[in-house]
Parts: sequence; structure tokens; C-alpha cells
Amino acid sequence: MKVLIIGASGTVGRCIVDELQQDTDIISASLNSGDFKVDMADTQSIQALFKQTGPVDAIISAAARGVVLKPLSEMTVEDYQLSLQQKLLGQVSIVLHGLEVLKDKGSITLVTGIMNHDFVKDGTAAAMVNNAVEGFVQAAALDMPRGIRINVVSPGLLEPSVELYKNYCPGFEPVTTEKVGRAFRKSVYGIQTGRIYSI
Amino acid sequence: MKVLIIGASGTVGRCIVDELQQDTDIISASLNSGDFKVDMADTQSIQALFKQTGPVDAIISAAARGVVLKPLSEMTVEDYQLSLQQKLLGQVSIVLHGLEVLKDKGSITLVTGIMNHDFVKDGTAAAMVNNAVEGFVQAAALDMPRGIRINVVSPGLLEPSVELYKNYCPGFEPVTTEKVGRAFRKSVYGIQTGRIYSI
Repeated sequence: MKVLIIGASGTVGRCIVDELQQDTDIISASLNSGDFKVDMADTQSIQALFKQTGPVDAIISAAARGVVLKPLSEMTVEDYQLSLQQKLLGQVSIVLHGLEVLKDKGSITLVTGIMNHDFVKDGTAAAMVNNAVEGFVQAAALDMPRGIRINVVSPGLLEPSVELYKNYCPGFEPVTTEKVGRAFRKSVYGIQTGRIYSI
Repeated sequence: MKVLIIGASGTVGRCIVDELQQDTDIISASLNSGDFKVDMADTQSIQALFKQTGPVDAIISAAARGVVLKPLSEMTVEDYQLSLQQKLLGQVSIVLHGLEVLKDKGSITLVTGIMNHDFVKDGTAAAMVNNAVEGFVQAAALDMPRGIRINVVSPGLLEPSVELYKNYCPGFEPVTTEKVGRAFRKSVYGIQTGRIYSI
């Protein structure tokens, strides 16, 4: 199976590569490394990516950056707009344009995160954006062409990120990188659609 | 109690006015009528509104327009951006700027709708936007200053809208206008915060 992983060099991306590389033909794309370069904040860059990859069986997005973490009292409408740009509109763009290269019965897997269920300090934009992606995925699953499936993986606090987010996520149960990788395998190699795999 | 209702002239707004007018000092704002004019698609217009209203005990948003209903195959990233403008970013703007005029222990009530739980034809943007607003409200409730509360009312298919949405909502149980009004009363006069009142 040929699988395009966008954001392959990030913390989540590396979990996915580690899990899939044993039996999967991986094409990787990231901002600064991998087989192809792509800027998730730029929908034209996303469109350009799919002109280069050729047909694939699955697309995975592990691109989860750009969400502003600040107290509500310091947030502006522009902070929320900025937060929507990559993780919501970038991932929506992956779906809209990714459909052009996906084979029949292929799949798309997006990524969110725990912060719209377990709320954290300074996390109003994170809750908004993750919820937006999950609402979109559930509705889009009902309108995908050619038997193509779409799911989203919502990881908790990753073990490699515990130090980085310890002030935001006190007492959160760390999730192993293996568990994150398996959730993406479940989405790509399984049969379900419109699912939120929360791990 | 002095309550500002934004979008008071719309279908949801009229339900709220009917319910509250017996015992509430209502200030109304809409695009083309009411005590004040406001354009929910323009954050500067929203900011200007609060410079005129003076202090209030509660702010209600019944402003739910501007979401694009189209098949996924016809949607563009711009359609999603447009869909986010009023119902998400307009309502976020009401929260950020409304805090400047809200009295201590006041409340804000936003509006979403059933389409992120009961998915409908052409409704990927509606599911996205409603979910985004609800994620924001739940997280924002944990970071509101001065004892101010925030909730959201998610109405089902309103009785007056059955004819308009009959192709989108087959078999949906219509919700009476009285029930919608009471949900907003519950949010404004009750004590809870961070709640999604789905009716």
C-alpha cells in the first residue's frame, strides 16, 4: 500500500512512520524534509504537493501546528484566525485536493488532539480547532466519493511531549508513540469511516 | 436584568425575545433593525456595537448565518473560510469584546444547531462550524473573568424553519419556538457555565 504522510518529520509523524515502514510504501512530506516539501499554512503549496505525488492508497496528516495557546483575555480574533489556518483549513485542503490523487476505496486520516475533551490552560483555540476538525471529518465521511474513507486520530499527551507540555497537562496520562502509530494503522488498514480514534 | 440580544430579528432571535420580554430589559441588535445595527461578518462592527450599548447583565447571540451548504465535491477552502466568518469568528468576537461591557457575574449565550450531531446533506461546513463554537465555549468557560458564565444553545429544526430545511432534515423532530426561548432563559437566568443546551 502506498501512503502519503504529511508532517512525517514531526512528533506524531515519526510515530506513524515507525509503525508503518515495515510493510508500507511511504511517501513523506514536511515543511523542510522528506520526499516532498509542503507548507500546511499555504493551500497552494498543498495543491502543488498533490500534483507531484501521483496516485496513492492513503493520505495521513500529522500536521498539527500553528494553534495559539494564550489566556482568553489576551486572545484576539486574529489569534483564532491564525489558529484555524493550518490545523483546520490546512487539513481540509488536504481532503479537498487529496481526493484528486486517492485511489478508489482509499482513505484519509487527519489528526486532532486531546484538548477539546480534556481542557487545558490557555487552550480555547485548541479546543475550537480540534472540535472543528472532528465535526468536519464526521460529516465529510458521509459525502466521500468512490468508497474513500476518512477518520481522525486524537492523541493524548505524547510521551516525547511530556516535558514540553507539562505546565498545560498536569496529571495527563502519557501515550506511547507505539499506541499513536497503531491508531493510524487502524484507520489506514481498517474498514471504518467517520471515526474519531481517541487514544 | 438588562440583556443584549444580537440577531434579535432572526428566527431564533424572535423565540428569545418572545420568552424574555415579559420580565427582561431587552436591548436588540440586528443587521437591519432593532435598537442598534450590527454586521456579524465584520468584527469592527461588533466592536462598535459594544461602545454604544453600555453595561449589560447578559449577552445573547442568535446570529447563525453565513454557513455554506454544498456537497463536499463542490466545496472550496474559501467556502469553509466564509462559513467560519460569522457563526464562529463573529460569535468569538462577541465574547472577546462583550466582556468589556458585561457586569460581574454576567453571562454570554451563543448559538449553534443540530447539524454537528445529526449530520445532514451538504452539511460539512455546518458540522465544522457548530463543533468549533461548542469547543470554544466549553474551554472559554474555564477562563472567564469576574464570575462571568458562558453557554451555548444548540436548537434542532425549528418549527418555523421546517419548510425551508425539509430537504436537509427529513424526519427531524421539529422544536417549538417556546422550547428554544426557554433554553436561552435557562442559560441567562440559571447558574451553569460551559454547558451545551441541545434541544
